[in-house]
Amino acid sequence: MSHSGGFTSQDSATKISVGDAITPEDVSASSAVASDETARYALLLGDDCLILAQRLGHWISRAPELEEDIALGNIALDLLGHARFFLTYAGSAWGKTEDDLAYFRSEEEFRSCRLVEQENGDFGRTIARQLLFSFYTHELYQRLVRSADTTLAAIADKALKEVDYHQDHAAQWLLRLGGGTDESKRRMQEGLESVWPYLEELFADVEPTPTLAEQEVAVLPSSLRDAVLTRLSSIIEESGLEVPASKGAFGADRSGRFSENRGFILAEMQVLARQHPGATW
Amino acid sequence: MSHSGGFTSQDSATKISVGDAITPEDVSASSAVASDETARYALLLGDDCLILAQRLGHWISRAPELEEDIALGNIALDLLGHARFFLTYAGSAWGKTEDDLAYFRSEEEFRSCRLVEQENGDFGRTIARQLLFSFYTHELYQRLVRSADTTLAAIADKALKEVDYHQDHAAQWLLRLGGGTDESKRRMQEGLESVWPYLEELFADVEPTPTLAEQEVAVLPSSLRDAVLTRLSSIIEESGLEVPASKGAFGADRSGRFSENRGFILAEMQVLARQHPGATW
Repeated sequence: MSHSGGFTSQDSATKISVGDAITPEDVSASSAVASDETARYALLLGDDCLILAQRLGHWISRAPELEEDIALGNIALDLLGHARFFLTYAGSAWGKTEDDLAYFRSEEEFRSCRLVEQENGDFGRTIARQLLFSFYTHELYQRLVRSADTTLAAIADKALKEVDYHQDHAAQWLLRLGGGTDESKRRMQEGLESVWPYLEELFADVEPTPTLAEQEVAVLPSSLRDAVLTRLSSIIEESGLEVPASKGAFGADRSGRFSENRGFILAEMQVLARQHPGATW
Repeated sequence: MSHSGGFTSQDSATKISVGDAITPEDVSASSAVASDETARYALLLGDDCLILAQRLGHWISRAPELEEDIALGNIALDLLGHARFFLTYAGSAWGKTEDDLAYFRSEEEFRSCRLVEQENGDFGRTIARQLLFSFYTHELYQRLVRSADTTLAAIADKALKEVDYHQDHAAQWLLRLGGGTDESKRRMQEGLESVWPYLEELFADVEPTPTLAEQEVAVLPSSLRDAVLTRLSSIIEESGLEVPASKGAFGADRSGRFSENRGFILAEMQVLARQHPGATW
């Protein structure tokens, strides 16, 4: 329980606000308790980050360049940090820890979108997945910093600074590969085509988000659609590649019912903690 | 090719010196060319870091705590950074890049020790492996900063600051688990027992190190033995656990002849780069 943010448990929850350098421990120690609905929204945001962090972690020492290994590893750790914030805050509603939520929920209880659950594939596909997710979250967090829920706003503020770099990283690779060799163009285009069907799910107004958006706590996903698509189309055209024409894949309720990947991801992620449930060692 | 160290390719190699914040790009851009022997020594140091980084990267989103995921992920990225330095410098002798050496050498050409090739096992075993490796490299780099080879000295100086934290991280976990529950004590002790047979190999004076040690370029591994064993014994006793009595495992020439793990590690690490050899994409 470190308090690097200078925030102590005696302070009121409203002391967590935009501009503070908060830590997950601050969220945990604060008196800010999420409502059940807000917690379910935080889970949805946190699960996306958690799953993508795990996917990206696989690149450590497996990227096409050692330098890039480190870049992707750092992005993975950033996302894991964002997941910790959202899961810690979600847990405050139910007396659970971030670890309870990460390691002891079942496949159906996860709310991650299928975009982040997609396999890494080759480097082009990983970059395409990063491009979509970072452009989406950048737009989302830019609006979430104005949330009526000060904890969510402070988390978004912290995450936004890092997503700013993630977005730039993906865009630079898109431009480099799109303007590269025939091979790099072909593979980057294939990467875009393979993840594009999962973009639409990010804009689905799944409960409890619409209810919370009315209260100005959450950002309505569908309201992000035009801005994200415009910016994505613009950078893809700049890269000389084509904006995929594919429609969204069937099923968009984040329930995991339509994802063949989630079970495998969780099996890997949860095995150690579950071998010794509740063990503090 | 960034030059954050303020070091340009016009400067002489001797400008790389202790205290500079060098980058692998500085090493690559400098006129410092390793001799064949020095390059083989640098490979030996770099391979240990590279393999251990890959092993540790697996913990991202798989540790018993999300917070610990991030700690182990950061250590993995530090080690990958050290590997990049050593491999870049080694490559200068043969006109090869760090990526050539990481992704296009065969199993027999790797010089990593078996300690870093050991499987992660449970958390206790991973911490035991970290303890041995960080205590060893801390002692090694402390002496290598005085190497007659200014590039090696500068790399050691940079790495030492990070290994200082790695050492502390492992020691804190050893004390916590050694002073914890019966379960944590048992598993930490088992972790120590399982990796201890691979400690002795770190002290083997395998060529070209003895020759380079005479020239005060390298640190003679056997000269580190007493200091490392004394410090390890001391912290293990402080933790309430027992210093393993096991002798070194058979075979200690870093040739890979006695390692059943190296092939699997490299298969995973090299598959992507090798699918498209020489591809700049």
